[in-house]
Amino acid sequence: MEKKELLYEGKAKKIFSTESQDLVLMEYKNSLTAFNALKKGEFEGKGELNCQISTLIFEWLNRHQIHHHWIKNITTNSMLVQKTEIIPLEVVVRNRIAGSLAKKMGIEEGQKLETPLVEFYFKKDELNDPFLSDDQIIAFKISDQKTLEILKAEARKINLALIHLFKSVGIDLVDFKVEFGRNKTGQILLSDEISPDNMRLWDSLTNEKLDKDRFRRDLGNIKESYTLVLEKVKKGVQLEPESRH
Amino acid sequence: MEKKELLYEGKAKKIFSTESQDLVLMEYKNSLTAFNALKKGEFEGKGELNCQISTLIFEWLNRHQIHHHWIKNITTNSMLVQKTEIIPLEVVVRNRIAGSLAKKMGIEEGQKLETPLVEFYFKKDELNDPFLSDDQIIAFKISDQKTLEILKAEARKINLALIHLFKSVGIDLVDFKVEFGRNKTGQILLSDEISPDNMRLWDSLTNEKLDKDRFRRDLGNIKESYTLVLEKVKKGVQLEPESRH
Repeated sequence: MEKKELLYEGKAKKIFSTESQDLVLMEYKNSLTAFNALKKGEFEGKGELNCQISTLIFEWLNRHQIHHHWIKNITTNSMLVQKTEIIPLEVVVRNRIAGSLAKKMGIEEGQKLETPLVEFYFKKDELNDPFLSDDQIIAFKISDQKTLEILKAEARKINLALIHLFKSVGIDLVDFKVEFGRNKTGQILLSDEISPDNMRLWDSLTNEKLDKDRFRRDLGNIKESYTLVLEKVKKGVQLEPESRH
Repeated sequence: MEKKELLYEGKAKKIFSTESQDLVLMEYKNSLTAFNALKKGEFEGKGELNCQISTLIFEWLNRHQIHHHWIKNITTNSMLVQKTEIIPLEVVVRNRIAGSLAKKMGIEEGQKLETPLVEFYFKKDELNDPFLSDDQIIAFKISDQKTLEILKAEARKINLALIHLFKSVGIDLVDFKVEFGRNKTGQILLSDEISPDNMRLWDSLTNEKLDKDRFRRDLGNIKESYTLVLEKVKKGVQLEPESRH
């Protein structure tokens, strides 16, 4: 399956058409951006790291019966995925309070939530991805009640699967952001990468940050952290043989 | 019923204790503030105007079986109300898009919503009253699902009653903000003024603003507009004789 026309170039990925109308090729870039691309960076091998981490996680999610767009990898930094029409919501799941929510609520980062919190942000760069309530999403016809319920349920399932994976290798999943899309049959699929670019991962013992916050906050050792996450995810996946599921 | 100790002084009102434990006296000030009190102003007679407008509206809400804290007026700028424990949420109802929502969504002011939108903002000056989703309110234990449902239902009932009143005198109710509290029996009551300080009121024909936006946006004729609103509300209340309800 070869890549053909460039359909879309985002901050961290390129999407190409393929011979099949229903499949696209997703290529991971080496670039890093933060604060709606006001801050930019890159490092050699970052695309490959995120592609490998995402791949292992998609395989892990398969074991948990979670529907996603991934089909197979093509190169070390590209994968074949189902073509979906993206629902323009960033779905954030939080297990602990960090980032924008800590700031908004005037709470120190790290406080645990009793139950995971799901939030929706409108995917619209020019508006700075505003946070929306369910009622606002419905009022603006961005989505409907039933879809929001599916997104929340899927996001919670993904959260449980990821917590399980990371906990086994000494990492706390603080929060993550994913996007969903509909394939040609109308099925809602996780349609995003799952990498340290869109998760907050803290070392369970030291609370050391192992994710994009190292870039956002100029903490250094970005490549080392992403590499460590890949190693840990590999180990976590191996710890639990596939046949048990 | 005399006023005794000053219990609380807000931006536009003072609350005094009375001889009764269950009642407080609410005194309307002449001050005007906007943008979390970064902008300040006042005009002679403003407290009286808002007290009179609120009074007429509380009487109107009585006819619509809406529970509120108002009992009776004491002076031209003070009223006796039930003492309530305030639920720390600003409840906003929008019929058209304006103000912060227009800005957040990048939409021109004035667009009508198909159904009224209810929003919650956390009453916390030092955090700038952040907008919260229902799930966030529950996660932070600011309130619970059942209470949010009651607040939404009450806010929608108030909205219908106010639309009815203002429409009859040529005014469009664009949006408004109210607060609720619980009295000693646990009943949830509207516990706020209802005045041009917390409603957006547009002349139905000219779209001229007749509310606090005249102060926020330096449009002039603030006192004249508030006076006009009082006259219109008086007329609206008289148009529909109480006995018909």
